[in-house]
Amino acid sequence: MPAMSIIEHMQWTGDAASGHLRLLDQTRLPTETVWLDCTTVKDVWEAIKRLSVRGAPAIGIAATFGCVIGVQRGGSLKEAADYLATSRPTAVNLFWALERMGRVTPASPEMLLAEARAIHAEDRAMCQSIGEHGLNVMLALRKKLGLMETEPLGVLTHCNAGVLATGGLGTATAPMYLAHQAGVPLKVFADETRPLLQGARLTAYELQQAGVDVTLLCDNMTAMAMRQGLIHMVIVGADRIAANGDAANKIGTYGVAVLAKHHNLPFYVAAPSSTFDLALPTGDTIPIEHRGSDEITRGMGRQTAPDNVKTYSPAFDVTPHDLITGILTERGLISPVNTETVNA
Amino acid sequence: MPAMSIIEHMQWTGDAASGHLRLLDQTRLPTETVWLDCTTVKDVWEAIKRLSVRGAPAIGIAATFGCVIGVQRGGSLKEAADYLATSRPTAVNLFWALERMGRVTPASPEMLLAEARAIHAEDRAMCQSIGEHGLNVMLALRKKLGLMETEPLGVLTHCNAGVLATGGLGTATAPMYLAHQAGVPLKVFADETRPLLQGARLTAYELQQAGVDVTLLCDNMTAMAMRQGLIHMVIVGADRIAANGDAANKIGTYGVAVLAKHHNLPFYVAAPSSTFDLALPTGDTIPIEHRGSDEITRGMGRQTAPDNVKTYSPAFDVTPHDLITGILTERGLISPVNTETVNA
Repeated sequence: MPAMSIIEHMQWTGDAASGHLRLLDQTRLPTETVWLDCTTVKDVWEAIKRLSVRGAPAIGIAATFGCVIGVQRGGSLKEAADYLATSRPTAVNLFWALERMGRVTPASPEMLLAEARAIHAEDRAMCQSIGEHGLNVMLALRKKLGLMETEPLGVLTHCNAGVLATGGLGTATAPMYLAHQAGVPLKVFADETRPLLQGARLTAYELQQAGVDVTLLCDNMTAMAMRQGLIHMVIVGADRIAANGDAANKIGTYGVAVLAKHHNLPFYVAAPSSTFDLALPTGDTIPIEHRGSDEITRGMGRQTAPDNVKTYSPAFDVTPHDLITGILTERGLISPVNTETVNA
Repeated sequence: MPAMSIIEHMQWTGDAASGHLRLLDQTRLPTETVWLDCTTVKDVWEAIKRLSVRGAPAIGIAATFGCVIGVQRGGSLKEAADYLATSRPTAVNLFWALERMGRVTPASPEMLLAEARAIHAEDRAMCQSIGEHGLNVMLALRKKLGLMETEPLGVLTHCNAGVLATGGLGTATAPMYLAHQAGVPLKVFADETRPLLQGARLTAYELQQAGVDVTLLCDNMTAMAMRQGLIHMVIVGADRIAANGDAANKIGTYGVAVLAKHHNLPFYVAAPSSTFDLALPTGDTIPIEHRGSDEITRGMGRQTAPDNVKTYSPAFDVTPHDLITGILTERGLISPVNTETVNA
């Protein structure tokens, strides 16, 4: 397949003993390309906390490199891992990745770096595999809808479950990149995703860079786009999936799922297996991070709401499994979504 | 009832022969209070076009004062009215108000100013009446839900159908102001309403000024707030209502209506009778204004999307009548909403 311009946004620079993590600062995109050199565990923690690196799989990968740095600087692995685990509460991949790093013996920088790189490479392979399963779903849907050969499939996504959220082609975006590579006509709609605009700043950016046809819209325009028939399916990522298939993802995802159901559109969640938290029977107990009011009232730098106004600002919501047509993992498609199929 | 601090945002200053229209520039709210002196018809046209004054009833009222200015400056009434009619395409109140001005004889500045003032005063009375009917609906809902005396009713609104959109207490907000005055516990949720943030900049502002309990949220947080039980009902405004009750309003309204239906929440449209366009059998033929991409990509001054990204930016959407529980007009409540009840 032809090469695409995919952003390498997380790189380990140097050797295990003295190297460090370079991250593309996603808070500065799309207008500025600024690289962060993380040379301490605190640098990595802060990069995760302030969303310079975000997206459930990418957070996990960044944290594994953070463990290398911690030990490299003479700290204990446990200390580094425990600290990094406090950076963001919702994504389970972070805990999964840190847990895996915790099992490395001996916990030398060399061994830890090898494990971090393995996790990174596995994530890349998982994205590819999710993309292949998702592409099959897309092709089947095109056939079912009877789209003409040149007629684009309209695919909506929310937030950024893309290259910038993972170590590879993304989760929700992987089928889009593979469709694009395969010459399958595609029209992606990216919700801008308030308050932090990951859809506008990141998804629109990375798809445009790769040459994928992408149209940006505000979150509240999605319903009308669906009603007008511009959208044929939805694919989103997930930060944590409970045993019954309830999926936590960026705030707004649940609303999109309700809208998709109302318009009879298939709604897919794309996520690696590490996103599943089978210890939680349902999504009701997934911890939801609430963020400060400034992200709403001064979201773009300028104050756009009155002083001291009260805000409601959950960072995630939970989409109940009965609104999810299928979950795309690296192992295949789970559909229908329920406790039995998720645990199979 | 106790007085509330209600913003007088449209004022005619001086006499008919030499006076002019003073408008609070709503594009500068909530951080700056800037008054615009409109001394030519073009000033009024531009104030409407760039949304310094907005909201269907307020646009109509501003345009009537624009007619006075046109004739005062030696132009013909028809010329002024035809020009002002080109400022915004969706709101029908504009055409209704200009049509009414066109019937004034003789078309002297004095007679026209009297008519403009009459339209303004009638709008104020209509808002009051809509508020009273809406308050009855709220009180009935409180009873139905069995809310305790001190338990607040959660009311969501979208965009700004408030004081700043009308010549009085607003349409959607009028029941809120009257409930507040009457001491009925109330918790208003205001969608920020991208791209232009009328909810954040205007609704949150005017309700806060009046002492009403208001919480701001991003459009994509509404679904979760509903699921959490924070919202008991929705009241929105309308820019044009077709003969079957289909209602055009600010983009995002339709999505809120779908979400309300999914959560079994009553969804009300509040609008004066002049909003009805009975010549249109359904909402399908209501003209929908599409706006430039900068409002999405540079909505808050700072660029937040990649250069040259495609956008989808309808300014309004149409909510089909079967998603509307009732329409609150100055004449009472229309419920259920269909061709028969709307035309009764």
